[in-house]
Amino acid sequence: MRDLTSLGLKVEGGKLRCLDQRRLPHAMEWVDGDDPQAMHHHIHELVVRGAPLIGVAAALCLARHAEKGASRASLLDAYTLLRSARPTAVNLMWAMDRMKARIDQGVSAFDLVQEAENIFDEDVALCEAMAKNGATLFDGPESVLTHCNAGALATAGIGTAVGVIKRAFEQGKIRHVYVDETRPLLQGARLTAWEMAQADIPHTLITDSMAAIVMREGLVQRVLVGADRVAMNGDFANKVGTYGLSVLARHHGIPFHPVAPMSTVDASCASGKDIPIEMRLACEVKGYGDCQWGNPTSPVFNPSFDVTPVEGVTSLVLDRGVISREELQKGKLGEFLK
Amino acid sequence: MRDLTSLGLKVEGGKLRCLDQRRLPHAMEWVDGDDPQAMHHHIHELVVRGAPLIGVAAALCLARHAEKGASRASLLDAYTLLRSARPTAVNLMWAMDRMKARIDQGVSAFDLVQEAENIFDEDVALCEAMAKNGATLFDGPESVLTHCNAGALATAGIGTAVGVIKRAFEQGKIRHVYVDETRPLLQGARLTAWEMAQADIPHTLITDSMAAIVMREGLVQRVLVGADRVAMNGDFANKVGTYGLSVLARHHGIPFHPVAPMSTVDASCASGKDIPIEMRLACEVKGYGDCQWGNPTSPVFNPSFDVTPVEGVTSLVLDRGVISREELQKGKLGEFLK
Repeated sequence: MRDLTSLGLKVEGGKLRCLDQRRLPHAMEWVDGDDPQAMHHHIHELVVRGAPLIGVAAALCLARHAEKGASRASLLDAYTLLRSARPTAVNLMWAMDRMKARIDQGVSAFDLVQEAENIFDEDVALCEAMAKNGATLFDGPESVLTHCNAGALATAGIGTAVGVIKRAFEQGKIRHVYVDETRPLLQGARLTAWEMAQADIPHTLITDSMAAIVMREGLVQRVLVGADRVAMNGDFANKVGTYGLSVLARHHGIPFHPVAPMSTVDASCASGKDIPIEMRLACEVKGYGDCQWGNPTSPVFNPSFDVTPVEGVTSLVLDRGVISREELQKGKLGEFLK
Repeated sequence: MRDLTSLGLKVEGGKLRCLDQRRLPHAMEWVDGDDPQAMHHHIHELVVRGAPLIGVAAALCLARHAEKGASRASLLDAYTLLRSARPTAVNLMWAMDRMKARIDQGVSAFDLVQEAENIFDEDVALCEAMAKNGATLFDGPESVLTHCNAGALATAGIGTAVGVIKRAFEQGKIRHVYVDETRPLLQGARLTAWEMAQADIPHTLITDSMAAIVMREGLVQRVLVGADRVAMNGDFANKVGTYGLSVLARHHGIPFHPVAPMSTVDASCASGKDIPIEMRLACEVKGYGDCQWGNPTSPVFNPSFDVTPVEGVTSLVLDRGVISREELQKGKLGEFLK
């Protein structure tokens, strides 16, 4: 496998490595990603995260497994294991199914490696295309709000929603970025704030509960978020809290845009009701890591994602173009998939 | 001073003591509250918190100071110090001004102690009255959502919003309580969840970002919150995140009620614009206590409160009765204050 480099994933001297995103921003620790069992753990535990990136990581892992001489049966086992690591982001299933189609064709390890490398390269190009399309939303300088991390750490390229922000910033169209901390796993506070600082983009970190007052005070003019799965009617799943932001944005007359590659669109989901939502452990809501502050005996509700109905979407930014709510409601995604 | 007992404050053998609410739910530590300097620290650092309770605590502290033989000048210094401990909750100013009126009359230490004891006793009675009035909102069993801690820990009695929940629960009118964790200081996760568990009320802890999906899924039929200051037009300040909940509740057709004693109403504030909002330190948003996860170089916005306009209020529950949005908008609070 040739050398590959992204912010959260790299191949060096043929070995796949992942940045442990749980340790950011305090430590930059790279862990091995060659072994499918280990990669399943990395994806499930959010060492590697971000809808596009987990697809890329799983594909590279499967290719490395082939390169090391795994049998067809072992490859299929690894496929099944990796595909099940997280249930909501469809990019993982999409990337795995693309690899499996090649395995089913009986191609060589060399060809599987090339397919995974292609998935990586394509993700970089998709990010560029989304950034280009998303930047056209801005007429002049604006301040924006984002949730979770839809950045370079979530993709092989410059990011989805954060990629748009970075490109618009280069074009003088971003004044300030408000970053939701994104409880429970704090991807905004830890990852997006770090990416903003790395890129020297003026930004302010807030708790999720402050987004409403930031909107009311006129501090932001647009909301940009990622997506883990987009249904054919334009409903989409993203990190929990996104749905509430869409309601708040609408109330304040603020445009709201999910940003995602076409691989996030799931032709098998007619609407958001068909998107499975991953439920996670109580300890995530009762604290953060070893720091557990919640009342020990209290039950918890912990959906990792929520679904925003298309009514809350101003337009969807894809690598292929920008689709308005009205177009989504008229089935434009179906045309795009043809 | 006679013995007094509440969940977060007590007088035992003449000495005033405060439960360190920062340590809950993991430890029950009582700290001394006799000294005005110490009490200023306790209130500012949220050892003692909750709009009604900080007024009661400051009044008792001032009375203890008098009882220990403080001069009139020292009492006035202590008054000024304590009154300034936190800027948003008006109950603190109200209780302090009530004590100062007695000091200005030149009354004895005995009379000052009695005034403070009266403030404590009245708060207990006010909670009972709010609970009675609030329970009338419920026709049959409902599930409710609450934010921050407007409970027994925030008052000398059974609480404001949580007092209503407790009374309604006793009457078979509460099915389930969803508790917002309430970032950044997590009063929901630490205090309200603990109070719910103590009272054996079925409850579920969520992150603030999950309130929207809880509403959308029909899991709650009502929102009850406290208030730190109510303006004459019915706008009110409460823990940051409350405003967003009011918007979400309205969008989902869910009734939304602040619950507060009359001492929370500020005749000098015509509208919410007149309410000063306390800004707090960045470390609260970048983490919790010693656990700091946020990107170290990122700036932070940390208003401790936000203002919910009267348009978001279904009705205001007071000790004197329940006032609808329409009545608030017609100036009913002015009649109540006469």
